[in-house]
This record gives sequence, C-alpha cells and structure tokens, in this order.
Amino acid sequence: MIKAAILGGSGYTALELMTILLRHPRVEIAAITSRSEAGQSIGRVHPSLLQRVDVVFEEFDAAELKRKQIDIAFGCLPHGASIEAVKPLLEAGIRTIDLSADYRLTDPEQYAAWYEHPHTDTANLARAVYGLPEVYAQRIRTATLVANPGCYPQTAILGLAPLLKHGLIDPESVIVDSKSGVSGAGRTPKLSTHFPECNESFAAYSVGKHRHTPEIEQVLGDIAGTPVNVIFTPHLVPMDRGIFSTIYAMPKQAVGEREVMDLYRAYYAGKPFVRVREGLPATKDTLRTNYLDIAVRVVRDRIVVLACEDNLTRGASGVAVQNMNLMFGFDETEGLR
Amino acid sequence: MIKAAILGGSGYTALELMTILLRHPRVEIAAITSRSEAGQSIGRVHPSLLQRVDVVFEEFDAAELKRKQIDIAFGCLPHGASIEAVKPLLEAGIRTIDLSADYRLTDPEQYAAWYEHPHTDTANLARAVYGLPEVYAQRIRTATLVANPGCYPQTAILGLAPLLKHGLIDPESVIVDSKSGVSGAGRTPKLSTHFPECNESFAAYSVGKHRHTPEIEQVLGDIAGTPVNVIFTPHLVPMDRGIFSTIYAMPKQAVGEREVMDLYRAYYAGKPFVRVREGLPATKDTLRTNYLDIAVRVVRDRIVVLACEDNLTRGASGVAVQNMNLMFGFDETEGLR
Amino acid sequence: MIKAAILGGSGYTALELMTILLRHPRVEIAAITSRSEAGQSIGRVHPSLLQRVDVVFEEFDAAELKRKQIDIAFGCLPHGASIEAVKPLLEAGIRTIDLSADYRLTDPEQYAAWYEHPHTDTANLARAVYGLPEVYAQRIRTATLVANPGCYPQTAILGLAPLLKHGLIDPESVIVDSKSGVSGAGRTPKLSTHFPECNESFAAYSVGKHRHTPEIEQVLGDIAGTPVNVIFTPHLVPMDRGIFSTIYAMPKQAVGEREVMDLYRAYYAGKPFVRVREGLPATKDTLRTNYLDIAVRVVRDRIVVLACEDNLTRGASGVAVQNMNLMFGFDETEGLR
Amino acid sequence: MIKAAILGGSGYTALELMTILLRHPRVEIAAITSRSEAGQSIGRVHPSLLQRVDVVFEEFDAAELKRKQIDIAFGCLPHGASIEAVKPLLEAGIRTIDLSADYRLTDPEQYAAWYEHPHTDTANLARAVYGLPEVYAQRIRTATLVANPGCYPQTAILGLAPLLKHGLIDPESVIVDSKSGVSGAGRTPKLSTHFPECNESFAAYSVGKHRHTPEIEQVLGDIAGTPVNVIFTPHLVPMDRGIFSTIYAMPKQAVGEREVMDLYRAYYAGKPFVRVREGLPATKDTLRTNYLDIAVRVVRDRIVVLACEDNLTRGASGVAVQNMNLMFGFDETEGLR
Repeated sequence: MIKAAILGGSGYTALELMTILLRHPRVEIAAITSRSEAGQSIGRVHPSLLQRVDVVFEEFDAAELKRKQIDIAFGCLPHGASIEAVKPLLEAGIRTIDLSADYRLTDPEQYAAWYEHPHTDTANLARAVYGLPEVYAQRIRTATLVANPGCYPQTAILGLAPLLKHGLIDPESVIVDSKSGVSGAGRTPKLSTHFPECNESFAAYSVGKHRHTPEIEQVLGDIAGTPVNVIFTPHLVPMDRGIFSTIYAMPKQAVGEREVMDLYRAYYAGKPFVRVREGLPATKDTLRTNYLDIAVRVVRDRIVVLACEDNLTRGASGVAVQNMNLMFGFDETEGLR
Repeated sequence: MIKAAILGGSGYTALELMTILLRHPRVEIAAITSRSEAGQSIGRVHPSLLQRVDVVFEEFDAAELKRKQIDIAFGCLPHGASIEAVKPLLEAGIRTIDLSADYRLTDPEQYAAWYEHPHTDTANLARAVYGLPEVYAQRIRTATLVANPGCYPQTAILGLAPLLKHGLIDPESVIVDSKSGVSGAGRTPKLSTHFPECNESFAAYSVGKHRHTPEIEQVLGDIAGTPVNVIFTPHLVPMDRGIFSTIYAMPKQAVGEREVMDLYRAYYAGKPFVRVREGLPATKDTLRTNYLDIAVRVVRDRIVVLACEDNLTRGASGVAVQNMNLMFGFDETEGLR
Repeated sequence: MIKAAILGGSGYTALELMTILLRHPRVEIAAITSRSEAGQSIGRVHPSLLQRVDVVFEEFDAAELKRKQIDIAFGCLPHGASIEAVKPLLEAGIRTIDLSADYRLTDPEQYAAWYEHPHTDTANLARAVYGLPEVYAQRIRTATLVANPGCYPQTAILGLAPLLKHGLIDPESVIVDSKSGVSGAGRTPKLSTHFPECNESFAAYSVGKHRHTPEIEQVLGDIAGTPVNVIFTPHLVPMDRGIFSTIYAMPKQAVGEREVMDLYRAYYAGKPFVRVREGLPATKDTLRTNYLDIAVRVVRDRIVVLACEDNLTRGASGVAVQNMNLMFGFDETEGLR
Repeated sequence: MIKAAILGGSGYTALELMTILLRHPRVEIAAITSRSEAGQSIGRVHPSLLQRVDVVFEEFDAAELKRKQIDIAFGCLPHGASIEAVKPLLEAGIRTIDLSADYRLTDPEQYAAWYEHPHTDTANLARAVYGLPEVYAQRIRTATLVANPGCYPQTAILGLAPLLKHGLIDPESVIVDSKSGVSGAGRTPKLSTHFPECNESFAAYSVGKHRHTPEIEQVLGDIAGTPVNVIFTPHLVPMDRGIFSTIYAMPKQAVGEREVMDLYRAYYAGKPFVRVREGLPATKDTLRTNYLDIAVRVVRDRIVVLACEDNLTRGASGVAVQNMNLMFGFDETEGLR
C-alpha cells in the first residue's frame, strides 16, 4: 500500500483520479489539498465521493505531506501554480506526477512563449520525464518527476507515432483536427461552457493558437528524429467526456491501407491500453476507460488516422495512474481495468 | 407598424423576443437597452442576430424612448431592477409588458416575503394586469402595464384552470411536479448550470421554496374563487428549452377520463395556443412555438394533468408577443405561427 | 474465484454487469449467451469491451453451463424469455440472479394481469427472493433464485421504506413521480428513443399503466404490513443514465423535517449503498456507482422524498453484484467501490 | 399566394419545410404525400404541427397535384424514389425542387458509381439546376427542376468558393473535416442513432466514402474551372441540428489573413444568407436560420476555413425555400427572416 496525495483537489481531473484510486488495491488516498476548499470534506465539493473518501481538504504544505509519508503526489493544479508545488515536493523527496503543462515543454523559451510567463524551475524541468507510457515507459519507471501528457496531444502523438517512427510521412504535412467534450475546459463556470450556450452547438476555438501545439510537435519530433509541423484545430463537442482526433498526413510514397494497419498493430503490440481497431472507433467505446482507440484509413493520396479516448481518464488521470504503476513497479493495468 | 423597445437585452428572453419580433409584420425593433452592453452591437452579444437587427445597445432612458416614439416596451430585467424601469416608462406614457416577477403578485406583502425586499411601486402594482391571455384577455387588451406570467406558472395554471373553474377538485390536494430546461436559469454562468455539472444529470431544486409558488396559488385562487394550496417542486432537465409539469389533484367525486378531457376541450375551445392532446405530449412538440399542450388522465382516484411548453417562447417571450397583439388589436397569433 | 455466466449478453444491463465484474477480484466471466449473437466476439457487440473479455457469445444451454462449473448465472433476458432459462438453470443446480421481471411479483395472477401472459414457473416463483439487499439481505444470502429488483421500484421502495416501516404516512396517499435516462428503454432502436426524437425533449409515458407499479406496491405493502397504493408516473429524460424519483406522501400527523431525516439516517445506518443526504441529490452524484441517494423535505402538510440512482448500476447490474456478494459471503461492497 | 405540395412528408426535411412555409406570406401548403402515412393527419405524424396544417397525407399522384393547381413541388423522398416522382411532376408541368441527391450529379456515370444503381431519368438530369443560390441564382430563377444541394456540400462549397474562384489554392490540397448533428441521418431508427449509443459520443463515419464527395468536387470544379479533389470526412455530433466544416487548403503562394477575409467579404457582398464572421462561429449561431456563417484563418502555411449552418434549415429546407423565392420572383429572404 503506497500513500498518495492529490494537490488541487477541487477540479475534474482530481475527482477522476480519486474515483480511480478508490479501486486501486495498492494505493491509499492519504491527503488532498486545495487552497479554496481547505477544511471542507470531500463530499461537499464532490458529492459523488460522499462517504467514500475520508480525508478533508487541507492547505498544501510539502513538509506536512512528507510527515504523512506520502509516496506519490499528483499535481492537479493550473499551470504556473503547479511549479510552486512541484519544487518543494521534490525537495521533500516526494515523487510527483504533474498533470499541468508546466513540465511538458523541454525548452523554457517555448514555455515562456506559449504560456506567457518565464519558467521558474528549469532545474526540475531538465529532469522531468514526459509521461506517455507507450513511448517513454523505461524512463518513467525511474522518474522522480513525470510531466503527465496533455489530453489532445496523446491522441495526436499515439495516432502518428508509428508513421513518424518509420519515416513514412512528410513531417510538414500533418493536420490534427480534434474534438473534445466540455469537461476538458475545467470546472470554472464561464459563458462558453454555460449549458444553454454550448449544448446543441459545435464550434472551433483557439484555431492555430492552442497551447497543445508545441507539445505535440516536440514529442512527435522526438519520435521522428526530425522536426514535425502540425496544424492543430481544437473543437468543443456538447458532451461531458471524450476526445476524437481526425489526423491527416501525406505519405512520402503510396501505401496500402492494410500495410499501414499492420504497422500500427506491430507498433502497439504488447501495449495494454492502445487498441488498433478494424472498424471506426467512437469516443463512447473508450468512455471512463484508459484505452486509446485508433483506426487508420488511406483516402486518395492521404493517410487518415482516427484516434479517440476519454479526456479525463486516458487523457489525464488514468494515464497518471498508469504512470504511477510503472514508477512503483505495479502491473501497468492495476486499478485501470 | 408599431415601435418596440426591449429593456435588458443581453439575456435569453430578450434574444427570443427579438427572434420573434423579426418575423412580426407589424412591429419594428426600435431600441434595445442594456447597462452592461451599452454601445455594443446586437451581433456581438447575440451572434445569431448578426446582420439581422440594426440597433445598438443603449443605456435605459425613458425620456429618450419617448422621444423615439416607442409604443411598447418589453422589460427583460431581473426582478427588483424591473420596477426601476417600469415606473418612468409608465410616466412617459409607454405601455409596458414586464417579463420579470415584479408586478405579478398583487399583494405587496407576499412580494416582500418571497422576494426579500419591499415593493416600491405599489401604485402601478395595483393596475398591472396578469398577462395570461387564456384567462385575462379582456383586461389585457386595455392594460397599460402587463405582468407577463412566469414560465412554470403557465403550465400549472392552464393545466388546472378547467378543474378549478368547475370546482371539480379539492383545492388543498394539488401537487405540481415541474421539470425545466436549463435556459430557464438565465444566461449568467454558475456552477449548477456549468455544462459538465448539469449535463447528463437530473435534479430537483428549491423544493418547497420556489418563488413561482405564490404566483401559481394567487392565479389559481382567482380562477377557483377560493384559496388554492400547491406543493410545487421544480427540477432541472439537461436540455436547452422546455417545461413539463405533471400535476396531481384529488377530484371531489369520482370522474371519468373522457368526461374530464371534454371539459378541457370545451374550456380551451377558441384559444389558439392551447392544444388539448389525446395522446401524451412531449416538450419537443412545443419547441420554439407558443403552444401549451395539455393531456389529462385519471389514475386510480387521482386526476393527472400533463402540461408542457417551451419556457422561452410560450413561457416568456412568445406569450409577451401574444399579449402585445391583444393590446394593439392585432390578430392574437400574429408573428407566432 | 467463482465463475459467472451472463445470459442475454447483448443489451445494456449485460454490458454494465461485465464492466463491473471485470473489476471484481473474486469473479471470472466464464460464459456469455445470446441467441442473436452466438459465435460473435464480445468486442464486436460491445466495442468498449474489446480486448477486455475473452469469451465468445454462445447459445444458452444449461447443461453446458453446468459442465463449465458456473457458480452464478445472471439473467439479462426480456421477461417471458427469462422463465425459459431460469427453470433449467435451477434444475442444473446453478444459483441464479434474474434481472428480468419474471420472478418479482409473488402473485402469478398479478403477473398474468400486468405482463399479459400466464406465469409458467410458479414453483420457482414461490421460492424466489426479492433482491433488495437493504430490506431482504438475510434471505438473499441463502437464496438459489434472486429476483433482481426493477430500476424505478428501488428508488420508490427505499425512498418510502422508513416512513412505511414506522407507519408514519397514509398508505393511500403515495405519489411517485419518476424520471429516467434513456438507457432504461433498452438497446432496441425505436422511434421514441431515436436521438432526434427524444434529445432536447422531456415526456411522460405509460401514465398510470407502468408495470413497475404492482412491484412497488407489493414490496411497500410487505414493509408496511398493510396494502399500499401508489400513483406512479414515469418520464423520459434526455440523458443516458440516471433515475430520479420525487415522492409525495401525506403523514398521518404533522412531523418535522429534522425528525424525518433522523428516522432515515437510523433506518439506513450500516447500509453501505444508501446515502441519506443533507442537501438535494442529483443523479450525477450516483452516476456509474451503486449508491442510492435520498433526501427528505417537509413541504406544507406533505413529506417530499427525493431519491436517485444510476438505473444501470444501482438500478440493475450493480445491485445484482451486491446480491451476488451476499449470496457468496463476499464483502457486500466488493467490486462496487 | 402560390400552392405548394410536399412529397415524402414524414421525415425531418418535410417537417422543417412545413414549419418554414407556415410563416411564408406567399405560399399555401396545399398537399402532402406519403406512401406510409396516406390518410393520416399531419399532427399524428408530426405532433408539433397539430392544429397548424390542415391537409391530410395523400398518396402521390402527379395528375391529382396538377388538378389541385400546385405551383411548386418539394421532393423530400429518398434518392432513387425521387426520380419516380420528378418525372411525372415535370410532365404535369409542375416546377419542382428535389431535396434528394437524384439530380445533383450531372454525370449519370458518377451517379451510378456512387449510388449503386443507374440513373433512369437522364433527360431531366440534363436540365436540372444545382440549387445553390449564392452561385447559381440566375439559372435558378428560370429553372423548372432544381436539385437542392446537400447539407455538407453547402458548407464545403461556400467555404471554398472565393478561394477557388480566384485560383488562390492548390485544387489538390483540399481537406474537408465535417461534423453533423444527428437529424442529418434521417428519421428511421437504427442502432447508430439510438439515443444511448450516439449521445455522449463522437465518431467519424463513411471515411473516404461519403456520397457527398463527388457533389462537392463537381461544384467546386465548376467554380474553379479546373478539377478539384477533396478528402471529405464526416462525423456525428450528439446534438439535433448543425453542421460545422473545418476546411484546410494550401495556398499557391503565401497570403495574409486579412487579405483572405477581405476576399470573402467581397465575394459574399449582397448575399443575404452568408455571414463572413470576424470571430469564430458556432453552429448555434445559425440554429433554425438560413444563415451559413464563415470565418477564415491562416495557420502556418495553410488556409483554414470554418463554415457552419443548420443542416435542416440552410442545409435542406431553408435553402429550398430560398430557391423557391428566386423561382417565383419573391424577395430572396421571404419567410426566412
């Protein structure tokens, strides 16, 4: 039994994390922090957890968490705020999985450019491991700081990894057209996520400007061994959960659909949470699971990849638990079946 | 062509009102006021109206509206604020339909008790006419101030009027179990109407405390000629629009279903916007129309009435236009077909 | 590790059951039957289970299930068809939890009247135990045949049990106004559950005629020790899952809200899956859990009970697993946390 | 006042058409045909039209429609069936707007290839006019047979027309990623449109194989004066109405965003139903209107066009009425405001 702390426990990724950990046989939820909810019971903030989680929200204090012998901390804080927690956690010797974007971009200049403030913890940034188990499992196992991957990027990266790994496509030709359920926008009410505004509506947002763009390009570039450019367009779908990415890429030379499918199956053989589908997937097939489903088609001269997941489970808290499993030598699928 | 002004133009009832008036052959939208949006174009606040309504939001000023020769003002302001606009409008000689609750309760004590502040315009309160055309058409025609009825109350009142008019039910036995789409909660974002909170969920709210209770009881009492007590429970449905009320009442003596249906048909004969249905209605049958659909069943010893409407059209802006039609001698259905 | 068979595996309750059992540490899914899907893999019918459940749909054959040493069979068949499976299962000595309505009504005449065909297995009917653990746990532990309770009835029964047990209310005064998500209508496409018909709509159905009425009355009568009459009105809510029942009852004499709440808390003390809530519950608080949440209010002269659950988990497959846990001496909450 | 007949009146486009025509001051709904519903009242099939449309469904009979002096027939029949109605209508001298795909593809070989049966009315095919008013208004005015455009194609065509007209983009580079509400799938229940299947889910379908592909390519080729190839991917969104297309194209040489926007504004100047938006549009902005909203962005080396509409109004029945207005010399916006 290891002890977990959850930082920034009032949002949706924290709720999802607790829901998963409640079923994990080797983890105890030992502490939950929240600046705004300190002193509150969990059930008051997350009624679904009433009578299920015993702890009370507390203020974040790394020393106190150390005293409680926390083995693993999950950071569910907004970017910027996350850095302020990760530094003292690592100093206190607590291994940390940060679900924010703060330690994902390896280049502090890129971070500063896209997040509009300088990175103030470049030392830890240098040793953070990008927490995508299908690509970086080896490094995750021994990491002290895991930068949990973004929700959109996972579909883009796993959707394109086999093609780029084998140099099959033009790395300048990639278009990622993504669609997300509304929980991806977080729990703070605003007009764009007010029910009568976004229900029964579909819209694009942040066209050409979304902060997940450099994250996708960085990891794909790492896999390809060459820079990759991505046109990334996110959209909002009137549903709670789910991300679906439709990805277009130009093969360097003509390929057959069956051949590409076989490539994907080979690449993901032995990866328990990626399913290469024969038919077309729907986000509902992955709802509240840690699976990321992929299908591939060749249309005219283009490869079209369809990749989907649950944005809160696979896209955030599920993959965080998968990372934790690797870090502590548990079965990779423990608590995630 | 008469000239209309809309006060408090940034919310959903104002948007619905403009959408209806755009199709009305005898009304021109001549002014729209909003404290928060003054100076803005309509299209910026309500993108669906882009290039369709020419006016710009202005600050409310009764003298200016008089100068513009406004014939009818629609108040879409919150209760409390509405009083502040209605007084100068009537002084300026502008006939007004107030969509707030400020002039619905005839007894200022009741108003003070339920709305938690005293009524500051009892003079106009005394001459306000409750704007339910199926009951008060005669008085509406000549009214200078119409208190447009609440969304829930219309289903309760029209659902019960034939029974109470004929003294068929025990006036202490009435239960109104109502369900509303989320637009009824207005356009200000809050946690309870944040998409991932209320989508895929169903809940009751304000049980036994909703402010529409005294409004329902007052008008039903007027129709019955005797006090009527109502247990009223509102619920939130994950959909944009629609109210459905399931109403239970105890008949004074056993009645047959067919007999009760005939009573309803007779009561609503010649009323263009009430449809007494043979089958069970669904809110979608009334979506974006001014119809209020009613069915009646006898179950065991109880009469069960099912009444539904679109909360923004029939429940607010549609019936406001119906009231305007009566006030100006237009065909009652003009602009509402 | 016990072995479970699921009969009629193509529908939603079977899918939910498998999803739960996959996480249950003491049960193996050893067989799944379906007449229409025999020979198919699970993943083809339920894509969310791809690569998660290894068995293939087979034809139902009690002898074959016996040969496979099945310990527990879950019947997810439609009523009528269920009887045809339960008989041979019990003959083969396989303990059975029947999720259909076939063994719920103890009186075969009632069954014949409401289900419009005679009951053809009255012998087993006589020994079936109604599977509501909060009321019948003792008998469930030793049962060979458990009649798993209906989704609506659980909210009505658990919502009213404390009041009737203590004789606090008039047993003729009960109104149950229930609202259900669309998955309750099953997986066979029809016009009323076609997305563009029922989405963004709310409607009542089977008013005064729903087959859960006699089930509610029978069990409430058993708890009360006197006949109980119920007016039951089901409605369809545009959401996947969730049932919310608003229940109205007349107390025999005036009671205070706090007093009633305390009564509920006492009644449900030690019951792990009923949460007596201080605030008002929403179906989303119970989504994909086995919890049934209850709140009580006193409004005027009436007691208003609000009870909700997930119709597929608590309302069907979750409570079935809770029953199985009792039958096999497992912790009542195993697999359901 | 002209007289309209609607053929195939039981589906969603027919319902939408009637809803629009009810408000049109110059058209009377004089006949409605349906093979399956002949003899039924409109209200029984479309409850929202109860007491609003007086006619009764009849069998299709061109001679009878001629006898009724029908001026315009709207074909809402499935492809294939539509040809069987259009032939006798035109022989009877009744001008016809066909909402099916039967007369859209000018090349009968293409039709046969995509619709999998030969075209049996090539004579009328030759004189059909593609009913996209923003491009073919002149020819529509005098047409006897208008092939009403497909829902998806309108967003693709109007989204790309200015670019192709001016030869700004590589005609081989076009990707159209489209998302549609479920009403686009018609009114016949099937598993993929069963509420609990498609609600809270997002999926692609017919990837690379959708029948709107040749329609888009044909009209874009006509506008460009050169063949245009399109990769077209349709998706299903859990909402009733709305189509949103995200379109990617490679400019022949670098262009500025402002420059492209100006081009769009110039191209659509004077077109009452296309709104070139400064901000990003949402389908809800166009809900139940005949507007098609477009925004343009330049992202890296690509032009990204965002185009949306209501699939039943602008995408089918609204544009049909716009076509009718042109054919009969009415104001283009009559009945569509």
